Amino acid sequence: MKATARAHTNIALIKYWGKKNQNFILPYNSSLSMTLDAFYTDTTVEFSSGFTTNQFYLNGELVNDEMTDRVFNHIHKIKTLLNQLDLPNFTVTSTNHVPTAAGLASSSSGFAALTAAAVKAMGLDLSKSELSRLARLGSGSATRSLFGGFAMWSTGNDLTSVGSAIDEHPEMDLHLLAIETNGARKKIPSRSGMQNTVETSAYYDAWVQKAKNDLDLMTYAIKQNDFELLGKVAENNAMAMHATNLAAVPSFTYFEPDTLVAMQAVQELRNNGISCYYTLDAGPNLKILTQSKNIDAIKAYFNKKLPKATIIQATFGPGIQYLS
Amino acid sequence: MKATARAHTNIALIKYWGKKNQNFILPYNSSLSMTLDAFYTDTTVEFSSGFTTNQFYLNGELVNDEMTDRVFNHIHKIKTLLNQLDLPNFTVTSTNHVPTAAGLASSSSGFAALTAAAVKAMGLDLSKSELSRLARLGSGSATRSLFGGFAMWSTGNDLTSVGSAIDEHPEMDLHLLAIETNGARKKIPSRSGMQNTVETSAYYDAWVQKAKNDLDLMTYAIKQNDFELLGKVAENNAMAMHATNLAAVPSFTYFEPDTLVAMQAVQELRNNGISCYYTLDAGPNLKILTQSKNIDAIKAYFNKKLPKATIIQATFGPGIQYLS
Repeated sequence: MKATARAHTNIALIKYWGKKNQNFILPYNSSLSMTLDAFYTDTTVEFSSGFTTNQFYLNGELVNDEMTDRVFNHIHKIKTLLNQLDLPNFTVTSTNHVPTAAGLASSSSGFAALTAAAVKAMGLDLSKSELSRLARLGSGSATRSLFGGFAMWSTGNDLTSVGSAIDEHPEMDLHLLAIETNGARKKIPSRSGMQNTVETSAYYDAWVQKAKNDLDLMTYAIKQNDFELLGKVAENNAMAMHATNLAAVPSFTYFEPDTLVAMQAVQELRNNGISCYYTLDAGPNLKILTQSKNIDAIKAYFNKKLPKATIIQATFGPGIQYLS
Repeated sequence: MKATARAHTNIALIKYWGKKNQNFILPYNSSLSMTLDAFYTDTTVEFSSGFTTNQFYLNGELVNDEMTDRVFNHIHKIKTLLNQLDLPNFTVTSTNHVPTAAGLASSSSGFAALTAAAVKAMGLDLSKSELSRLARLGSGSATRSLFGGFAMWSTGNDLTSVGSAIDEHPEMDLHLLAIETNGARKKIPSRSGMQNTVETSAYYDAWVQKAKNDLDLMTYAIKQNDFELLGKVAENNAMAMHATNLAAVPSFTYFEPDTLVAMQAVQELRNNGISCYYTLDAGPNLKILTQSKNIDAIKAYFNKKLPKATIIQATFGPGIQYLS
């Protein structure tokens, strides 16, 4: 009654922004991501009648906070959906190999690893697609972290809104540089930010339509192994997502002054013939998409432009793995 | 054959962003502005058979650049439309009382003063509405600068797209603080920026609809003498205008790092009970809308937060005036 799984984080190239159903975490638009090798979560789930209570250990420490509630609720949902409500108490032991400084949310790898470990600890054998449907209930972006390389999360109903592989072993020379300029906890959590935007932004409907078109372009770029098109579409899609927030009532933004400095640096690098593009999630830290030959030049330029920034490098990571 | 006119700049509270006709400068949406006392242009136009050529003096110097072409073209259009093509050569002498540091475009006051002085120098007597139609052909925002207080520029066809007074002597206690953090010439001129957005932004149609709704709200706020509603609508309308640029292909922004610092300062002031809102044109310099009692506190806060910024204060200005 014990299993360990490893899941990698992912960065959305076509963003998920807004739920059409809060309970089932059903998105208004399909999203597409790159799974990252550098950031992952290892999680062990054990069910045992010897446990007098449920427990959650994170990075070696017993935790009892909001995240503990989310973990326990997630296990309860899985037990319910898989008819395993008579299982004994459990212990979840999780280690995040996601440096806080990366500015990359650990919830995608966290809920993917938790779901896979819990299901295996129950002695059940589910497909990645079935696991991704369960992972979705913990965190939307976790839906894509079951798969390696390029992965997609489809909008749909509770049964069809699942992750799938676009290309788990891409040929594309594609790297990500996470530029961490601000380690502070973000002021507007993505859950409330996106919901406010869905409810009040005059641009929300146009966003959903644009995201559909961008997804088609991005899928084409991946099939054609076209880095330039991928970068352009990713950058434009991210900015369009952030634009929906500016048009919300009241308007808000995740941009910080250093976000704009980093954006300008990327534009300057492009003007100098260094091919790179940026994307930005619901936080201030820019992520740069580029190719091997440009990494050193980009790092050198950012060390000069934003000397206090931390830069962490990643490329394609694998899908879910079972460590035991 | 000589006349002098004074026109004041205006700040759009509901923005003009995008033309449906380039030649006639017909906007997709109506806009609404506050005419400002602190910034104005004095322009003398003289027609004389003694002049061997047309000349343009700006701030005491003979000018021969892109702006000279715009001035000459504008006079030519007025002569054509008013059947005055047999007039002799002219001299235009213009003085801008618009500190470059204010980050406020002088084209609104410039083309309003030029139009009024030229028509009067021709010996013709046109209504402000007729003058505003002519001023529009030089610069869209000049359409509103014929009127004092709150003015509107209506979308429509070439005959009906004119300025009008909403309230030339408003009771509202309303002041503007122009926060100049960046005196550099803007990288993307508003003419090309707005045209790129019209052609490529997925949010442009939604912007036009939102601007219509915001105009109704703003008109109501003015009628009700409701500063808070006016500020909220102005801030949200400006951000929605800037959001259309983020969603253009490629995306672009007029925000600079200090723009975000200034926005955050306004939000912090609000959190501390100081009522103020911001608006932003096609450039990086924030303009703050507030009431008399809060001016000192805002200036003090900005002196601390952005010590290098220049702050220039204004309130309602009058419509077109003839100095001779």
